[in-house]
Amino acid sequence: MSLAPASETLADLRVDGARLWQSLMDLARIGGTEKGGVCRLALTDLDRQGRDLFVSWVEDAGCEVRVDAIGNIFARRPGRNNALPAVMTGSHIDTQPTGGKFDGNYGVLAGLEVLRTLNDADVQTEAPLELAVWTNEEGSRFVPVMMGSGVYAGAFTLAHALDQQDREGVSVRDALAAIGYDGKEAVPPARPDGVGAYFEAHIEQGPVLEAADTVIGVVTGALGQRWYDVVLTGVEAHAGPTPMPLRRDALLAASDLVRAVNDIALAHAPDARGTVGWMDVFPNSRNVIPGRVRMTVDLRAADDATLTAMDAALRAAADAAAQAGGVTVQVEQVVYFAPQPFAPGLVQAVREGARDLSLSAMNVVSGAGHDAVYLARVAPTAMIFVPCKDGISHNEIEDARPDHLEAGCNVLLRAMLAQAGIAR
Amino acid sequence: MSLAPASETLADLRVDGARLWQSLMDLARIGGTEKGGVCRLALTDLDRQGRDLFVSWVEDAGCEVRVDAIGNIFARRPGRNNALPAVMTGSHIDTQPTGGKFDGNYGVLAGLEVLRTLNDADVQTEAPLELAVWTNEEGSRFVPVMMGSGVYAGAFTLAHALDQQDREGVSVRDALAAIGYDGKEAVPPARPDGVGAYFEAHIEQGPVLEAADTVIGVVTGALGQRWYDVVLTGVEAHAGPTPMPLRRDALLAASDLVRAVNDIALAHAPDARGTVGWMDVFPNSRNVIPGRVRMTVDLRAADDATLTAMDAALRAAADAAAQAGGVTVQVEQVVYFAPQPFAPGLVQAVREGARDLSLSAMNVVSGAGHDAVYLARVAPTAMIFVPCKDGISHNEIEDARPDHLEAGCNVLLRAMLAQAGIAR
Repeated sequence: MSLAPASETLADLRVDGARLWQSLMDLARIGGTEKGGVCRLALTDLDRQGRDLFVSWVEDAGCEVRVDAIGNIFARRPGRNNALPAVMTGSHIDTQPTGGKFDGNYGVLAGLEVLRTLNDADVQTEAPLELAVWTNEEGSRFVPVMMGSGVYAGAFTLAHALDQQDREGVSVRDALAAIGYDGKEAVPPARPDGVGAYFEAHIEQGPVLEAADTVIGVVTGALGQRWYDVVLTGVEAHAGPTPMPLRRDALLAASDLVRAVNDIALAHAPDARGTVGWMDVFPNSRNVIPGRVRMTVDLRAADDATLTAMDAALRAAADAAAQAGGVTVQVEQVVYFAPQPFAPGLVQAVREGARDLSLSAMNVVSGAGHDAVYLARVAPTAMIFVPCKDGISHNEIEDARPDHLEAGCNVLLRAMLAQAGIAR
Repeated sequence: MSLAPASETLADLRVDGARLWQSLMDLARIGGTEKGGVCRLALTDLDRQGRDLFVSWVEDAGCEVRVDAIGNIFARRPGRNNALPAVMTGSHIDTQPTGGKFDGNYGVLAGLEVLRTLNDADVQTEAPLELAVWTNEEGSRFVPVMMGSGVYAGAFTLAHALDQQDREGVSVRDALAAIGYDGKEAVPPARPDGVGAYFEAHIEQGPVLEAADTVIGVVTGALGQRWYDVVLTGVEAHAGPTPMPLRRDALLAASDLVRAVNDIALAHAPDARGTVGWMDVFPNSRNVIPGRVRMTVDLRAADDATLTAMDAALRAAADAAAQAGGVTVQVEQVVYFAPQPFAPGLVQAVREGARDLSLSAMNVVSGAGHDAVYLARVAPTAMIFVPCKDGISHNEIEDARPDHLEAGCNVLLRAMLAQAGIAR
């Protein structure tokens, strides 16, 4: 046996971009919408149809298929030495209610295209390869989001996930059984070291690559997140009879806080983010001074020291806005995700793959959550981003260029081969 | 005949504060709520019960009762010279869905208490007195608000008012007939000069008098109003993957505009007001940068030059916020009420009434609309404010002190007598 990096041995190997595109279009028909998007919520019958199509494809590609107890699907392509930890890729095929064709699906079908390409070229890897479909990444029907990868990585328990219900009161447990994907494999797996490396290709879902006219995003890690619920309480009063100095206007104080959240993120450029996405004004009447505003705050940063500093700045800004406006403020943190750096060796493999293919590339951070962020807790992990049109995702008009998708898939192929090694 | 100001001839005449309070409590039982408020929407059967009780009271007080075609009720106490224009007072007895006992009802029952006091003291006025109940001041069931006084003053036509429908499709015309208050009197009246003076006593519905520890508000006029609908349009995007410099955050721009509206009003202290009472954020999702915000703006000022300057400042601020945030903005004015100064002679009569009674008094402006604001278009008009607890109105906990209500009623008595003159 000899083992050599793919870049040296299979320099001319390329995926079939047209076949990848066709797979994306075929899968997108299941739950396809009039506007060209996809509505295929987790654990619905449409999800079953998508899963069944995926399983038929990987079985045609010679893979062994396993399903675990949270419905994650694993398609395994044996290597020469199957005692080695698998080199894994994957993503999800559930969508938002008004989702697109590429979010998640690209990562799964790029993995499929890698397997098909290796089959066509009759390449045997040293380590086995695995292609995963993670259950319910989107969280549109059941929360928590990233459910399948979260259970796999031990972020929460299987029992907790199975007990969750949708708005109609249907549990994850029953929904899995109804579509026949209540699998037998233990999750979390008994051998979490069974994954030697995890790669996930994904559309960027943001505007950075497009703005920089760059094809490959080398994802160095995922931003940490702190989410907050904020309540500002003033005194509702008639807009006419109440002079300005006697007001306790909750919306005015909230507005100052929105501006402060933005300034806090700008102070930690370029990676930090600060967003107020949701606001509820009470009583929300044209001629009544608002007496109460509820709002969310979403802070993100690449490292925990920055995120902690932003948390302190938020609380100080909330107090300042409240004091200036004569209102009271409550700030409650409701979600915390630690910043998640990816494995330097795998990040480097992605970078080298792009370099060897002469593709433009840049370091980016993942601002959003992905299955890879949970996988990074139990396996060396990296991600590959490709641009999406106008940075738009979670939208029926989500779009991406076939040549970009093909380029990202070729990078995935090279990175996986570099990790798995080639059997001679 | 001799005619002398009341202040010189009936210096010791006082209303019966306990009787006034009892009338307020008796009327408040009709539609009374568990929390101590009143729900008596315009032209409902509860409104009929309240009207019937009022009519029984003024008939017991010897008044002649007329009802006009929009349902306004006029109780007339003849004077010695009934060719003189009447000295009128009044207000409304309809309430908000979660209204209080005093808003409107106080003005009507203060007028009743004046008539009863004159009866008890056997005082004949030179000019006749009239006590009006205006239909649908609140506008909770039917718009426009201040409907009865608006038709009376020619602000809009009778036909327009009668055609309006509530949410169940019932017209004002049918609702008036159903409660038996579709009267015969022409409206607007054939002789608009039939009103020599109009006074309206009202709780302040604001915090100024209470904050200044003052019993009588000498209302010099009503603020003009400009109401706007504003739409800010940015680009919705994921909060995570979208760096701060690439955002077009509609809520951030809207927040800057909320602050600007406040600053615009402060720049024209003390009378000007600027309020954003209503805001709608789209898509209003925790981790999505808002793509669109709709909001209202309510600007008020005591004179038209100020209001015009505030309008220009609003439009400039909207453009500045839009440009800074990379969003577009539309500002549409949807309502305009001209500032309405009250008649100086009548305002002075109120001031002198308070002085003669050794009551603390201060000039105030009416920030809110009242029937008196429409009456001021067709007759010399003034208003008398008394404090309400914490400035709260349009609320079931609306409250006022009996001694304050009595004091305002005594001022009303003196002001009306001063205008009507006393027959000897």
